[in-house]
Order: sequence, then structure tokens, then C-alpha cells
Amino acid sequence: MEKIENIAKRYFAKEVTDRDRAIFEGAITLGAIFHQFSGIPIKKSIISLVKETIEKTMSIQPFIEKINVKINEETVRPHSHPYDYSILTGELLEIEVISKYGNSRIYLEMKYIKELDFPLMYIKKIEKL
Amino acid sequence: MEKIENIAKRYFAKEVTDRDRAIFEGAITLGAIFHQFSGIPIKKSIISLVKETIEKTMSIQPFIEKINVKINEETVRPHSHPYDYSILTGELLEIEVISKYGNSRIYLEMKYIKELDFPLMYIKKIEKL
Amino acid sequence: MEKIENIAKRYFAKEVTDRDRAIFEGAITLGAIFHQFSGIPIKKSIISLVKETIEKTMSIQPFIEKINVKINEETVRPHSHPYDYSILTGELLEIEVISKYGNSRIYLEMKYIKELDFPLMYIKKIEKL
Amino acid sequence: MEKIENIAKRYFAKEVTDRDRAIFEGAITLGAIFHQFSGIPIKKSIISLVKETIEKTMSIQPFIEKINVKINEETVRPHSHPYDYSILTGELLEIEVISKYGNSRIYLEMKYIKELDFPLMYIKKIEKL
Repeated sequence: MEKIENIAKRYFAKEVTDRDRAIFEGAITLGAIFHQFSGIPIKKSIISLVKETIEKTMSIQPFIEKINVKINEETVRPHSHPYDYSILTGELLEIEVISKYGNSRIYLEMKYIKELDFPLMYIKKIEKL
Repeated sequence: MEKIENIAKRYFAKEVTDRDRAIFEGAITLGAIFHQFSGIPIKKSIISLVKETIEKTMSIQPFIEKINVKINEETVRPHSHPYDYSILTGELLEIEVISKYGNSRIYLEMKYIKELDFPLMYIKKIEKL
Repeated sequence: MEKIENIAKRYFAKEVTDRDRAIFEGAITLGAIFHQFSGIPIKKSIISLVKETIEKTMSIQPFIEKINVKINEETVRPHSHPYDYSILTGELLEIEVISKYGNSRIYLEMKYIKELDFPLMYIKKIEKL
Repeated sequence: MEKIENIAKRYFAKEVTDRDRAIFEGAITLGAIFHQFSGIPIKKSIISLVKETIEKTMSIQPFIEKINVKINEETVRPHSHPYDYSILTGELLEIEVISKYGNSRIYLEMKYIKELDFPLMYIKKIEKL
């Protein structure tokens, strides 16, 4: 595995630090989750299944330590008839991604911010190990 | 629910039969699955989770009775290092969708066909109830 | 090309008519468009570019004669600051797909229906040639 | 616009530098492009249209200065019959994203690396302004 990472490293600029790299890897995954899973049909009874799938598929990505997904249950439609279900969007979704590379662990989040009317992505915490 | 379906029906051409409608609804879901889930990272240990999620999310769509997904395990990479995982594509995936509307049940499939080098979608069976 | 279509046809049930097939192919594309393009960032000045791209990429799909996409300009945000843009969803989008197979041409549509609070897909017209 | 950015900034950790932020914003967009556009049907004659659409939609994202997309023409199928077209994947695609925040401009890339059999994302250059 070290050998493989050395191949990858040849493509990165020399001055890239562990902190740079951990931010980079976490942010890729944040952007990926939003654009991969937007559009999925969802109803209340399968929220926990969808949550688990996003967490387990997307934490396969390089240098992701953990992902926590929260789907706002109140905003998901009850499926009382064939056209009554929700489509997963940035408004329904809260994501936390924790990435780690070398001596750095980064906590990144996405959350819908009412004031901006926008699902904002941001760096919540930077940890030096 | 009948009332709701009557609202929807106003948009359909008068001559649309139950058979037409069941084919229509099943085919939408087949196209949807392919384009929604292409691109998801996958490794051997979460194949059954991804399978269940595709089946349960996409069978929420109107008039879908059942979905069966098969992900070809041999073609999924083992995840022996950070860059060693697979991306879900039409080559890895077999899908069966069963739709039902009124007196018609339709079995639709998607399967990679080597001779065409193409993940072909087709109608496998038409059942009059 | 006829030879190729004969390979494909072997997978379809014998009783599939031209009408069945044209509905099938059109509906796949309708479902595909929704799930492929949901999530794309959009602002007023690139509406016509996005429209053209959806039309030209998705009409590559088998037996699609024409696609017409309408993106509701009033609902697209003006991009007055970095977080002020829209994400393409079923609410912003109207789609017409025209498919043709043998003696049948089918007109299929997707449109957001206020009464259902749902982007409804439906068969608008069936043409015998 | 400054006021808006101040709202966003409240969510970021205090210690986030311009460099951190520029890497963060660029990497989100790199991950987003891959997962949004994987799965799109493509043929030779519309390569430049798809390229332009990826560049112009995804550079709407916050603090993206420029995007350059290259789609490897030789690997795109010629569309000689209905099932003869390509699906956009990480193997066909090269992406350069340039992000800028405050005093930092970052060049990020994605390219398929044969040695890894993987579409690698990496930071190519960090510029202090």
C-alpha cells in the first residue's frame, strides 16, 4: 500500500502538506456525495438504509475515515399514494465527512443554511495529530 | 389514492392501455436506476447493501411491484489499497424490474451483452392478469 | 445495423409490438434524463447550453427521434453572489421525448404538476405510422 | 457579496486559511464533476458541446475560476448503430479545476492513471498571490 501511495504522490505538487491533502480528500467526497445521491427516491421507512449506504459507499474513497449522514425525517413525504414520495436533495441532507492523511484529521460538513437558501459545505475542524 | 391516480390520468392520452402504461412505468425505472447509480464506489463487502438500497429506493417509483438487482461479485475489486475499488457501471449490474398497472404485469431487464458490448435493456415477459 | 438490431431483438419477448417497444425506449430516456441531470448547477445565462446538451446527449439513446427540453427561466436564480445559483430539479424542467420504432411514434412528457406536487411523466400521444 | 461571504464564513473553523479554503472549494468541484457527469451518453460529434457544458455549469460553484475538460476522442465510439455509443466515465475524462480564494490559487486535476487503473485526483500547483 505504501508503494501504491508513492505512485499517486508523484502527481501531487511537492509543497502539498498533510493538511492540504486531508482537506483535498475530504472535500472531494463531500462534493461527490451531493452529486451522486441527489435524485434518489426516498420515503420514511427506508431512511436508515439510504443513510447507511451513503456512509459505506462513500467512505471507500481514499483517506476517508468516517461519514455521518442525517436525513431530516420530517421533510420526507409519507408515501400515502404512488406519487407521494421525496427526492433526495441538499435540503433534506446533512453530511459530516472525516478525512485523515498523515498528521492531519479534518472534519467537513454540508448543511442547508436558511439564511443563504443554500446547502453550504464548510470545514468545521482541523486536527493536528 | 384512486382520486390521485385520476388526476395523473388526465395527462395521459386516452388510448393508453394498461399494457402501455405498465411498460411505460417499468421502463422509466430501468432508465432511472442506470443513471442514478452509475458512479457509486463499491467493494465486495458492501455489495448486498448496495443491492438492497437500489431495490428499495427505486421500487418506490409509481407502479413498480418488485426490483431484483444482481451485482457481479467477480468483477468488483477487493479494496486492498486506497485506490483499489470499483465504480458501479452497466457492466457490473444486472437489473430486473417488475411493473404492474391494471390488468398487466411486465418483466423488464438490463444485462450487459458481450456481443453488443452494451448494457441492453429489454422487455422479457408480458403478463395479462 | 439491421443485423445488430436482430441480436438485440433476441432478448425481447416474442409478443412485443412496435408500439410496446417505442413506449419502452422513450420511457427509458425520460427516466434517464431526470436522474442523470438532477443536481447540475445552473444560472440564467447558460440555460440554452444546458438545454442543448440534454437534448443532444440523451437523443443518442436507441430509437429516440427527438428531445425538447424547457427550463423555466423565472425559477432560475440570478447568480448575484457565489451561493446564488440553482440546482436542476424536476420542478425547473419540462421534457418532451419522441421515440420511434417500426410503425409507432410515441410522444412522452415530464412536467411538474402543482396539484400532485410531483414532476409527472406521461404518454401524451401515440402515433401509428 | 462580502456580507454573504461573511455569513458563510461563520460556519468555517477560525483557523481555515485562504489556502485551505481554495483547496476545499476546488476539490468539491472535482468530486462533483465526476459523480454528476458519469453516465452521460456521448458520441464523437458532441464532444465539444459536452465539454463546454461541464466547464460552464460546474464553474458556477463557489470560488471556481476556471475549468478545463478534455474528453479523449479516440476512446469515444462512432455511433454507427443504435447501441454503438459511449458512456462518460473517469477513463474518458481529463479535468482541470482552478480555484481561487483570497491570496491563493490552486490547480487541481483528474486523470486516468494506467499504473493505478484509477482516475486519480490530485493537486498540481499551489499559487500564492
